Amino acid sequence: MTILYKADPERGRQWAQRFAQKAPDLPFRLWPDIGDPAAVRYLAAWQPPADIMQTLPNLKVIFSVGAGIDQFDLSSVPPHVAVVRMTEPGIAEGMVEYVTQAVLTIHRDLFDYAMQQRERVWRERPVRAASTRRIGVLGLGMLGTAVLSTLRLFGFPCAGWSRSPHEIEGIECYAGIESLDAFLARTDILVCLLPLTDATRGLIGKRVFGALPEGASFINAGRGPHVIQQDLLDALDSGHLHAAILDVTEPEPLPPTHPFWTHPRVRLTPHIASATRPETAVDVVLENLRRHRAGERMIGEIDRTRGY
Amino acid sequence: MTILYKADPERGRQWAQRFAQKAPDLPFRLWPDIGDPAAVRYLAAWQPPADIMQTLPNLKVIFSVGAGIDQFDLSSVPPHVAVVRMTEPGIAEGMVEYVTQAVLTIHRDLFDYAMQQRERVWRERPVRAASTRRIGVLGLGMLGTAVLSTLRLFGFPCAGWSRSPHEIEGIECYAGIESLDAFLARTDILVCLLPLTDATRGLIGKRVFGALPEGASFINAGRGPHVIQQDLLDALDSGHLHAAILDVTEPEPLPPTHPFWTHPRVRLTPHIASATRPETAVDVVLENLRRHRAGERMIGEIDRTRGY
Repeated sequence: MTILYKADPERGRQWAQRFAQKAPDLPFRLWPDIGDPAAVRYLAAWQPPADIMQTLPNLKVIFSVGAGIDQFDLSSVPPHVAVVRMTEPGIAEGMVEYVTQAVLTIHRDLFDYAMQQRERVWRERPVRAASTRRIGVLGLGMLGTAVLSTLRLFGFPCAGWSRSPHEIEGIECYAGIESLDAFLARTDILVCLLPLTDATRGLIGKRVFGALPEGASFINAGRGPHVIQQDLLDALDSGHLHAAILDVTEPEPLPPTHPFWTHPRVRLTPHIASATRPETAVDVVLENLRRHRAGERMIGEIDRTRGY
Repeated sequence: MTILYKADPERGRQWAQRFAQKAPDLPFRLWPDIGDPAAVRYLAAWQPPADIMQTLPNLKVIFSVGAGIDQFDLSSVPPHVAVVRMTEPGIAEGMVEYVTQAVLTIHRDLFDYAMQQRERVWRERPVRAASTRRIGVLGLGMLGTAVLSTLRLFGFPCAGWSRSPHEIEGIECYAGIESLDAFLARTDILVCLLPLTDATRGLIGKRVFGALPEGASFINAGRGPHVIQQDLLDALDSGHLHAAILDVTEPEPLPPTHPFWTHPRVRLTPHIASATRPETAVDVVLENLRRHRAGERMIGEIDRTRGY
């Protein structure tokens, strides 16, 4: 009944401490010290080992240590093994902070003022009320919903788009690819918080940027491969897009010659928008272990047919 | 019964339009076209004219078009003339946006990541939960209270300091100069939203920065003269302070040789944190005109003995 952790070793030590406190009877091991492979029933991982079922023949559940599971090759995981996304509250807290900062940076023209500071000359820009700056979030999962619920408190008109219909208080919800253009046409700041699947890979390119109003901006805190990066550059350089704030790119890190690094209207960060916090993540995993043993559906368990 | 506007002419035209809509019978004039000086009872101004009582002998009320009244020389205003700060809701909205963006910029290490982007090398920094980042706001007026009420929603431990005692839900309130050190000792990000008076001019210097914990940061959206700028530079250069975000300086703009312009841990903006919005400001002035005629106390009317 061992649980095996295979991700960042420093965080792994924090997981180990937390498991020792909260579930002292549960054998917990840090990769590569796996002990008896046949005893491993649960794996918490960023990247599972190659030949996963040969290495861990009795595996029952894979817990992703991140919000997404796109880093897993699901074709190597047999259908009887459950796959669970990380849904602990620390991830949402970090994402709300990151996206709120990014939206306010664009809304208050802080790209422009940073350039002016470098020139040591001020040219004051007209202030726009939040009520005239329309936010649109792609993805209405736990993260998209948390972000929109905070942004609407600032008075921004808020909308969200997802594949399936949602109802969220105070948020205009669009569903399905046929409503994407209408959603984009009313969006001044577009935020990507989609899961990465075959249906969303490369979704954000020329067509999406072109459907946004002139002067719109883009924030990506989803995954790098959602975006056709050359199309984003073109949209910025033509002036159609005002600015982009990117926490994720393809690849990560970008090669040193990539034009995003030095583009005056691109802000990069190294995939730090939100991170799983051991202190809250272990509690969610323990609750899911309890559910799994009781034969209940786990929180964040993915639908293998949809891929998220 | 004329009301005379003397500030930014572009905004003045918006005020004129709004007055024409909402109070068509009230004579409204834009400086310098003052008409009969003896008819002017009300003045809405950023800087009143010199020799104010000679120019406008029957003046009854001066409305500041900004949140503060420190730009007025009160000694030239006789005691029978009321002085009113601007309290319209657009000012608070802008300030909440600005300070939230600034706090999150510091909290999420975005100064550091901006420097790393320029070097094209990532060195990931440990994430701190909002619950471990203590915010302290100097000044608990309309703006300080609005800012703290928003920041606490992110999970930051929030405190405020002011001269007189306050009670605000979820905010630890400190009062009086004797409690200042205790307030500073528990503050990781210090925000100045004080009124500028003889008691607060130069308050934020070596002693205040020294009382903050190592690694604290500072945001000034109050007034430039609250701060001893050389002391702030010293605190940043010694490493005791991590970063400063300054919307106000002394003077404005700073001379091109001032070290703040190029300091890697100073972000400047040109006094744009919050601005009076004509559409909401005129409503507040009209309500105050009604109160004045009815002999009631006006919203934002200052106490001439305290100076705010």
